[in-house]
Amino acid sequence: MKLATLKSGGRDGTLVVVSRDLGRCYPVGAIARTLQEALDRWDEVRDDLALVAELLERGALKDARPFDPAACHSPLPRAYQWADGSAYLNHVELVRKARGAEVPASFYDDPLMYQGGSDSFIGPCDDIVADESWGIDFEAEVAVITGDVPMGIDPKAALETIRLVLLVNDVTLRNLVPGELAKGFGFFQSKPASSFSPVAVTPDELGEAWRDGKLHLPLEVQYNGRPFGRPNAGVDMTFDFGRLIAHAAKTREMEAGSIVGSGTVSNKQGGLYGSKIENGGVGYCCIAEVRMYETIESGAPQTPFMRHGDTVEIAMHDASGASIFGSIRNRVRGLGR
Amino acid sequence: MKLATLKSGGRDGTLVVVSRDLGRCYPVGAIARTLQEALDRWDEVRDDLALVAELLERGALKDARPFDPAACHSPLPRAYQWADGSAYLNHVELVRKARGAEVPASFYDDPLMYQGGSDSFIGPCDDIVADESWGIDFEAEVAVITGDVPMGIDPKAALETIRLVLLVNDVTLRNLVPGELAKGFGFFQSKPASSFSPVAVTPDELGEAWRDGKLHLPLEVQYNGRPFGRPNAGVDMTFDFGRLIAHAAKTREMEAGSIVGSGTVSNKQGGLYGSKIENGGVGYCCIAEVRMYETIESGAPQTPFMRHGDTVEIAMHDASGASIFGSIRNRVRGLGR
Repeated sequence: MKLATLKSGGRDGTLVVVSRDLGRCYPVGAIARTLQEALDRWDEVRDDLALVAELLERGALKDARPFDPAACHSPLPRAYQWADGSAYLNHVELVRKARGAEVPASFYDDPLMYQGGSDSFIGPCDDIVADESWGIDFEAEVAVITGDVPMGIDPKAALETIRLVLLVNDVTLRNLVPGELAKGFGFFQSKPASSFSPVAVTPDELGEAWRDGKLHLPLEVQYNGRPFGRPNAGVDMTFDFGRLIAHAAKTREMEAGSIVGSGTVSNKQGGLYGSKIENGGVGYCCIAEVRMYETIESGAPQTPFMRHGDTVEIAMHDASGASIFGSIRNRVRGLGR
Repeated sequence: MKLATLKSGGRDGTLVVVSRDLGRCYPVGAIARTLQEALDRWDEVRDDLALVAELLERGALKDARPFDPAACHSPLPRAYQWADGSAYLNHVELVRKARGAEVPASFYDDPLMYQGGSDSFIGPCDDIVADESWGIDFEAEVAVITGDVPMGIDPKAALETIRLVLLVNDVTLRNLVPGELAKGFGFFQSKPASSFSPVAVTPDELGEAWRDGKLHLPLEVQYNGRPFGRPNAGVDMTFDFGRLIAHAAKTREMEAGSIVGSGTVSNKQGGLYGSKIENGGVGYCCIAEVRMYETIESGAPQTPFMRHGDTVEIAMHDASGASIFGSIRNRVRGLGR
């Protein structure tokens, strides 16, 4: 089952079921007005939503309308929880190597996770509004939306709380990071509003690609229209989503509609040359990563962060080449407009 | 106007208007079912809610019922945003002094703030569930709930976005803090679910005590039934709520219903002896603070953190001795029950 949220209908938008090929959608207000409402009552509404999805596939819903990702908000336009892990340790290893530091041994046992702001995400096709001097970067990730998660849950049981899977662009303002982390309280201003893929899907839609709490498909990033990254999200993920959810819920319960992110997807590769897509590598899911290779090999980064007018597109295709989640397409612009 | 949320009525409870003396309340489902709904449509509903409050004061509402804080959830049982500052620099100075470090000059210009989890607060009279080995502590604070806040707002305009004022117990697991901060991503497991005062009030209810974006009254903490702290929340607050909101909204807009906290209230005092309430001081709003005095003066902390069965009560009274927000009353218990 594939779900999306149209922007019309207030702060939380309007829930629609989307056809598998992303061609058509059907508003399901009679079942649940918003995605949060559906998640709040998931056991009650899941079967009804699945029946609508089946009818939509069969072409049996006369009122089905064309699905337009540009009319979508993020599936949860605002959420009660956005907890983002950093499960691809290769990314962390590169960060540390670029500044000549070791990765502490504990990082391989104890997930890194930060508490993100979740009150006002931008839509999948909305602009990122930011000052160029802040060092604007994207981070392409996989995320899950959970049901209610009891405190102290174990990683295996945590996997059963996953209701939906989606993609996220965890926008990061790199030049604000060092100052914030030096203060010791973690990210705040350096993590502005994230955007999510137009469509969130139930794990069963992913078939064999969803196993061991990981999504085994390449995550594709286009930067200004050119291929920039396509690492496999199932490879080199040190902590699966069960581990990440269990980490988040160690000292508190989590409520239905909690979003948990994987962190920037990153596969282990050789040096700068071989890692670029044009040289046969799998590329990068954020600009910071290529800058780290550049720093390690030449002493300084060369690739600039995003400038106003730059665009990033994030998507994932199944084995048959069909887009699973639709595309995140964010353009950067200044505060003036 | 005073507002509260009864636990009955689903995840977001039922919004009630509360009488000034906290004696009676009246459900206002016909105006707004939940506090979040009221905040989403504040300009539309404010006058109606104020009229109900006026009728309640006059004794003109036959269906008014006794107000029971124990039946209350936190005013927002779950919120889209919980951003907690650390505006009382005395607290930060003591932390640093206890470990022989300086406070960076920038801390006096640039507020400390962390992103808190907000998907499942505990109620004002609920138990804190935690393992004793985690180092359970309370933090008594003042907080505000905002309307919509545009990105880049200035501190003066930010004050105008404040809809409600309330108290918070920002529960902190001290023994988990050093490990988490060392990882560089800020607090997560060390900041479990917070609890808020049963009642949230509009700033006009506070009269002269609300000025310059600060609440000029003593914040009272009872620990296991004995006075533990009563520092004035209007004193030694380096950053007022306008500054804190502007800081939070520098790189992103904030949506109605965002909660912004002051950080542990703390007044500058002399050493350990004079700061205790029994010796004429104003005491402390968290256990960590007395432990820092102990560390500075004797090399090691003596006061233990909370044990199962311990209780903390947080309240604030107006000049006439009346409780403004009702009391937060949390008891600590283990995970087993």
